[in-house]
Formats: sequence, structure tokens, C-alpha cells
Amino acid sequence: MKKSKSPLSIVLLGSGNVATQLGIELKQQGFHIAQVYSPSMRHARNLADTLNSSAVSSLTKVNKDSDLYIIAVKDDAIEVIAEKLRLGNKLVVHTSGSVGMDVLKSISVNRGVLYPLQTFSKQRRPDWEQIPLCLEANSPMGKEMLAGLAKKISHEIAFIGSSQRKRLHLAAVFAGNFSNHMYAIAENLLMKEKLPFRLLIPLILETASKAAEIGPAKAQTGPALRTDNKILKKHAQMLADEKEYQKLYASISKSIQNI
Amino acid sequence: MKKSKSPLSIVLLGSGNVATQLGIELKQQGFHIAQVYSPSMRHARNLADTLNSSAVSSLTKVNKDSDLYIIAVKDDAIEVIAEKLRLGNKLVVHTSGSVGMDVLKSISVNRGVLYPLQTFSKQRRPDWEQIPLCLEANSPMGKEMLAGLAKKISHEIAFIGSSQRKRLHLAAVFAGNFSNHMYAIAENLLMKEKLPFRLLIPLILETASKAAEIGPAKAQTGPALRTDNKILKKHAQMLADEKEYQKLYASISKSIQNI
Repeated sequence: MKKSKSPLSIVLLGSGNVATQLGIELKQQGFHIAQVYSPSMRHARNLADTLNSSAVSSLTKVNKDSDLYIIAVKDDAIEVIAEKLRLGNKLVVHTSGSVGMDVLKSISVNRGVLYPLQTFSKQRRPDWEQIPLCLEANSPMGKEMLAGLAKKISHEIAFIGSSQRKRLHLAAVFAGNFSNHMYAIAENLLMKEKLPFRLLIPLILETASKAAEIGPAKAQTGPALRTDNKILKKHAQMLADEKEYQKLYASISKSIQNI
Repeated sequence: MKKSKSPLSIVLLGSGNVATQLGIELKQQGFHIAQVYSPSMRHARNLADTLNSSAVSSLTKVNKDSDLYIIAVKDDAIEVIAEKLRLGNKLVVHTSGSVGMDVLKSISVNRGVLYPLQTFSKQRRPDWEQIPLCLEANSPMGKEMLAGLAKKISHEIAFIGSSQRKRLHLAAVFAGNFSNHMYAIAENLLMKEKLPFRLLIPLILETASKAAEIGPAKAQTGPALRTDNKILKKHAQMLADEKEYQKLYASISKSIQNI
């Protein structure tokens, strides 16, 4: 276990949205990003420049003397890295919601997960303090190091096993990706009438805030909940030329009534 | 057309979420709420007390000398009121997104719509300035009076015909009710693992803000968009005991890929 007061030295593997935002936040909190790895040297260098770090594009050049290795890449790419990287007993974690911790078995005896439950993009700086960090580690040393790091960047940290984390990720697909797709369908429906999406923004923001405050079950309103069959039928007719949306409308309305 | 400087005198028919929040806002903006009508005297009195107004529970007691009559009741109840209320040439509007203006034909020759595109509850005070007010009126006098009133309560007013308004309402069902249902499904999925819904709140708020800022098409992420078939399959397996959610997961994922 790291006892000295010098900041942890971290190697960041990945250069996408999560790697970028996590790297920026770690640097801001005083951690030293020793290296940024990406198979694309251009991507590695881009992020390394932002983080005052050095770039490598080959796994053989990843240093062996850092304190923590964070693999923040697409799920499938974790395995590709695991096939080649060997780090003995160094703490190695990935940031995926849907991949078990043991995919890292071949890399190190000390492994873990740091899954930030949020949607990331390269341009938007997230408010890390509010982001739930779901942690897992297979050793007390790993747990302590991860918790210490996580507490510096968020108020909401929780140790959660791989199976619960996968459930969280599945729930996040509904709450994030799928709710966003409902917005996208709405945008499409408006475009056909040349109405601007802007008109829906206050509703979207209020729906999210209301669910956050009182919970989605209590917050629900609308024709499906009231079983207003007249409107449900009208809407089905209005979607006669958009069969896919018509089917979704029917099945989501039914699901609202079943809850 | 009203030329005097005395505030408009308004009769509010309804005592639900829309009537309550609209009544409070109109009073705040200096309008005089002359009467509140509800078939339930208790409901009428409740809201009338809040608005320093008088309560009536019979349509025959609705006064005939106000400037504007706002019918803010459930869609089906508009027709019930229209069967009985006769107001000559007074301006009468309803607040529904999905009902045509002409349902008010029997009440008055001057009719219109004031549809606030937002979700309302009795407890939450909405930010009226941001709420799009979709207006319609069948006379220049009605248009002028409605626009004057609407401008006092919101920055976002637009005259929109009945057919476009219905489309907007349909889009709002997707963007509001259906996105909220995605949160509700997520909450259910977490409950089964005894995980708190709270963990999803930052994701929900960020998803809404991001879509508002860059539009939902650009904001989309996740396994369906990336056609990450491994995760899509895993998630289908995880939902084996929740067939309804499994079907929704599949059809929404497919729809994300079709967009």
C-alpha cells in the first residue's frame, strides 16, 4: 500500500470520452498522469498534451512502475489489452459498467473497477462531485487505494459487485440512452411539421427534474396513465405512416399501464 | 377589444394541475380571477381561496361579464362543459394540446386555445417564463387578447394551428411521459437488486441537459448506437424474467439503429 505523500502516479489506457474527462479530473485533483496509451499515437498525444503526460501507442512501452493503471476503453478493447499487458501485482482497473472485474486476471493479481455512472462527451465537462463512482477491487490494498482516489473526485462512492454493477448499467441504458431516444423520436415527429425541437426543452428538463425529486413512479402523467383511450387511439392514427413509432407508442403505453 | 387599463377579468374553469398553476401565475401577473368553477365545490373553493376569487360548482352560476374564460380541464370534460355553457361572443379558450379549437363552437363565436407545453403538478411551481405557450384564436380580437396575456407570462409564445398543436402534443408524450417511463423501468430494475434510484439521477439530468444543448440525435451514445451485439445479447439475457422490458429493450434498440 502506498504510504508516501507524493501523489499517485497513474497510467491511463484509452483516449475516448471517459478517458479524457477522467484524466482531466484526476489531473485537476493533483494526481500525476505518467502516461497515456492509445493504439493511435495521434489520439494518445492529443490527450497526453492536455494532461502534461507522455504518449505511448504500444503496450510494450507502458511503464511498470506507476501506482495505478486505468483502462478506459470500449468493452471489447479491454480484452485486447488484457491479452498483452502484464503488470505483476500493480493495481489495474477498468471503467466499464458491463464487464466483470476478472477480465483483468491475466494482467495483474490486483484488479478492480471504477465505473462512473454518467454519460460523457469530449466537449462537456461533467460535474464529477455528483457522479456515482461504483468501485470494486479484489484486495484490501486495492479497495483502499480506489476509495481514496474516488473520494477526491466524487461525493458518491459505493463498492458494488460485478453482478450489481451490470444491473446498474442495464438500468442506465433505459434511463439514459432510451430516454434520449424518446427525445429523438419527438424531434423527428416535430421536424415533419417544421416545428422546432426547442419547444420541447422546458418539458424535457422539467420531466427529468421532477423524476429526480419525487421519483418517476409518482411523476408520471399523460394519456396512457389515465387510460384515455380516445387520445391513445387518435395518436395511433396520427402515427399511421410511422409504423415503428406507432408500435413503440403502443408498447410503451401498455407498459405504463402495467407498472 | 378591451381598451381600458383595468386588468382583464378572467373566469377559470377547472381546478386541476394546469388550472392551479395557471391561475397562480395569472394572479401574480396582475390579472383578476373573477371566478373558479369546478363541479366539486370543495375543489373550486380550494383554488378560489388561493386566488382571492369566488367559487362556483354549477355552470349556470358562471358570470357572463368577464373578459376571458379559460377551460383547463381534462380533454373529455371540455365537451361536457361545451354542452352547457353559453357565453355569446365572449372569448373562451381551452388549454388542451390534443383537442381542436372548434369543440368550443357552441359556447361562443370567439374561441381559442392556450396550450402550455409543460408537465404540471399541484406542488411544483413551474418557471412560466420558459414555457412555450401555443396559441390559437378564430378572430383578430381573440388573437390580440391572447397574445397580450401570454406575453405577460412567457417569453416563448407561438400561434399554432390545431393540427400542428396535436403533433406537438404527440411529440410531448414521447419526450415527457415516455422518457419518464424509461426512468420508471430503470427504477424497477434497480429495486430488484436493492440499489437506490438516486444513483441514476446525475445521468438523467445530464442526458436531458445534453439533449437540450446539442440535440438528441448528436447526444446519443450506448450499446444500441454502437451496435455492440455482445452487450445487447447480455442485456436480453438479463431481462429473461422480465419479458415486457426485454421486448421494449429490443424494439427501442432497433429504433435507435434505424434513426
